[in-house]
Amino acid sequence: MRVNKMSVRMRGFFERIRLSDALKIILSQVKQLGAELVPFPRSLDRVLAENVVSRVDIPPFDRSAVDGYAVRSYDTFGASQTSPKELCVVCAGKTGTESGLRVHKKQAVKLMTGAPMPEGADAVLMVEHAKTKKDNIAVLTSLTPGKNVSIQGEDVRKGEVVLKRCHRIRPQDVGMLASIGHLKVRVFRRPSVAIMATGSELRPPGTRLKPAQITDINSYSLAAGVASCGGVADRLGIVPDDPIAMRQALQKTLRYDVVLISGGSAVGEHDMAPDMVSELGKLIFHGVAMRPGGPTAFGVIKEKPIFCLAGFPVASLVAFDMLVRPALRAMQGLPADWSSLKVKAKLTRKIASSLGCAEVVRVRVWDDSGELLAEPIRVTGSGILSSMTRADGFVVVPENVEGFDKDQDVEVKLYG
Amino acid sequence: MRVNKMSVRMRGFFERIRLSDALKIILSQVKQLGAELVPFPRSLDRVLAENVVSRVDIPPFDRSAVDGYAVRSYDTFGASQTSPKELCVVCAGKTGTESGLRVHKKQAVKLMTGAPMPEGADAVLMVEHAKTKKDNIAVLTSLTPGKNVSIQGEDVRKGEVVLKRCHRIRPQDVGMLASIGHLKVRVFRRPSVAIMATGSELRPPGTRLKPAQITDINSYSLAAGVASCGGVADRLGIVPDDPIAMRQALQKTLRYDVVLISGGSAVGEHDMAPDMVSELGKLIFHGVAMRPGGPTAFGVIKEKPIFCLAGFPVASLVAFDMLVRPALRAMQGLPADWSSLKVKAKLTRKIASSLGCAEVVRVRVWDDSGELLAEPIRVTGSGILSSMTRADGFVVVPENVEGFDKDQDVEVKLYG
Repeated sequence: MRVNKMSVRMRGFFERIRLSDALKIILSQVKQLGAELVPFPRSLDRVLAENVVSRVDIPPFDRSAVDGYAVRSYDTFGASQTSPKELCVVCAGKTGTESGLRVHKKQAVKLMTGAPMPEGADAVLMVEHAKTKKDNIAVLTSLTPGKNVSIQGEDVRKGEVVLKRCHRIRPQDVGMLASIGHLKVRVFRRPSVAIMATGSELRPPGTRLKPAQITDINSYSLAAGVASCGGVADRLGIVPDDPIAMRQALQKTLRYDVVLISGGSAVGEHDMAPDMVSELGKLIFHGVAMRPGGPTAFGVIKEKPIFCLAGFPVASLVAFDMLVRPALRAMQGLPADWSSLKVKAKLTRKIASSLGCAEVVRVRVWDDSGELLAEPIRVTGSGILSSMTRADGFVVVPENVEGFDKDQDVEVKLYG
Repeated sequence: MRVNKMSVRMRGFFERIRLSDALKIILSQVKQLGAELVPFPRSLDRVLAENVVSRVDIPPFDRSAVDGYAVRSYDTFGASQTSPKELCVVCAGKTGTESGLRVHKKQAVKLMTGAPMPEGADAVLMVEHAKTKKDNIAVLTSLTPGKNVSIQGEDVRKGEVVLKRCHRIRPQDVGMLASIGHLKVRVFRRPSVAIMATGSELRPPGTRLKPAQITDINSYSLAAGVASCGGVADRLGIVPDDPIAMRQALQKTLRYDVVLISGGSAVGEHDMAPDMVSELGKLIFHGVAMRPGGPTAFGVIKEKPIFCLAGFPVASLVAFDMLVRPALRAMQGLPADWSSLKVKAKLTRKIASSLGCAEVVRVRVWDDSGELLAEPIRVTGSGILSSMTRADGFVVVPENVEGFDKDQDVEVKLYG
């Protein structure tokens, strides 16, 4: 039998690659993107491309952690509401900022939060625990040495790595960057993603469809998927099933980091996307042993990763979640796996699946008095987008498992 | 004793409100915001302020789900690779879009994905399962009625609610909006939040500090916190400890939905924020039985919620997470609780806590061969911002619990 090496169109998917192998290949082909500098107040959710090292001690000197009185803790031992101890306040006024201050025995110096600790003092009495009496204060509580004092470098030491490369920046991290004065942050670039919807039958949303016309859904859901994992998507519009138009459209994708071609990834007459990748670059796999999302192809053109995704909205988005999302995460320095959103739940119905093919089953998840339950959503085909809009997450049945039983505990990946 | 009703500054926090009560009060004071229309491609992560009802059936008519041949399934019964059945292809060419087509016994009509089903046909044979022979095809597989046919309305029925009010829009939901042609979406406005950092001692990040000067961290970390839960933050800058300056700054907050005042929420001499709220509106509580974050006040000025947060970076952000974040979520129509990011983990060390005060303990979380472990981060004070940057989440010890034991299973809320 003569096999046309260039195309699987005429022979169908004889050999489909395993999902796990497909992911491995993809991750071996994508590279971490370069870095860019952003002002720290705009760094939320970005991923660090550097180890952030502090050039300062935080606090920069021993200082008071409260508004109050610097004292020698020894002088407060035994003090209480009922048996206060008296101290003499020296140097009152807009206090605490003068240099060369010294607290002697039975003395106190008034200071504000952040004021450097005067010589001799080893604790700070909070305002609320002092009763003023002319130039004296009555100490209403006993202090241990170091109480209410922030020691130089106790939060951050000069030279310390405060935030690590590949960490995604959260609100407290923005605070840390402010604290150490790290005003510009080196973060990974966001991957730019070109999205082409192919198919002469496609019409923009809102169009009244004639027979054999289909609404372009995927370029919108995929663009939202890209945005949801930190990428920047550009929809390049609808490209007809025509090799010339497609080649032209691919020319426009040169400046992007990744290309997603929606539609034309199967083995029908008009499914020319994988062939096009093969012609202009290298087609690495075509067909994944996964349902939905099987008609997925991956290749590179001039080292740029190109994904050919199915035209069916569910197949397209499932393949996005399983294969494209990990790639976009890896390119930004994040773990490919989106693990923080996994939960264990008990199946309310059995899931049947065939050996040799990974099954991605959408589930509803709810809390039944403390126990998480997952209900597989019944579907009749991968065109049923409502199976995803009604779902809270999905369960993956690996290719070597024949499904899961009712009441079995399964791992559910939640949609963000 | 004469008690100054306007101020707790002179008396300290005699009565601190329980954390749960504080949250209840706040949620009773904030209102869901109004709605705005956004184009559906820009609706990702927004929260629906309407039930989205489809005005169309999806699919709009019975149509083929694949590229292939419309057939009468009865004619394929018993067909296989080894014993194919022959059918006569009628009306080949750019097929499937003609109206009035009919499939008779032993006939097939070629059609593309999305083409309406011809009269008489009840299944579609995929291209891969047909072998063409002049005007005939050999059917290589047996089809059940309905196979590869998308029935009108099977995904969405006209009049059906496809997405519910208060649902946060995900990529598949954007796809659904495209599918039903719901081009403009009614979503809740994002809450606008004014952030004032008060304190004459504050200096912008990157400033070399003199004694008693402190870097303004909070206005940045709070702004990031606001953004992380869908709000739009404006930093109004640093406001000195001066009633006139503060009143002026508060004037500028009229057009915002929420005001956060960082610093000046405790009971020191310069802590005037709660008094100011009291003067211009109504102070509802001052002091929460929570650590860190106790010095938190809440009130309303002309129905606008005002939060006074502690000056300490950790106290400020913890109070934000416990009290402000739920409010900002509720204003957008989301559940106040951010429950999808809870995990159960086993404590590696005991957590001590005092009765009567909720304790918010930052923890590191990791997976120890399938078991999640949570390690409380040792801290010496609420000034230690690195206790939050090193943390993956936090554990709340309620006020009626005296802490948790080593090896106890606890609920950890993960930072986003």
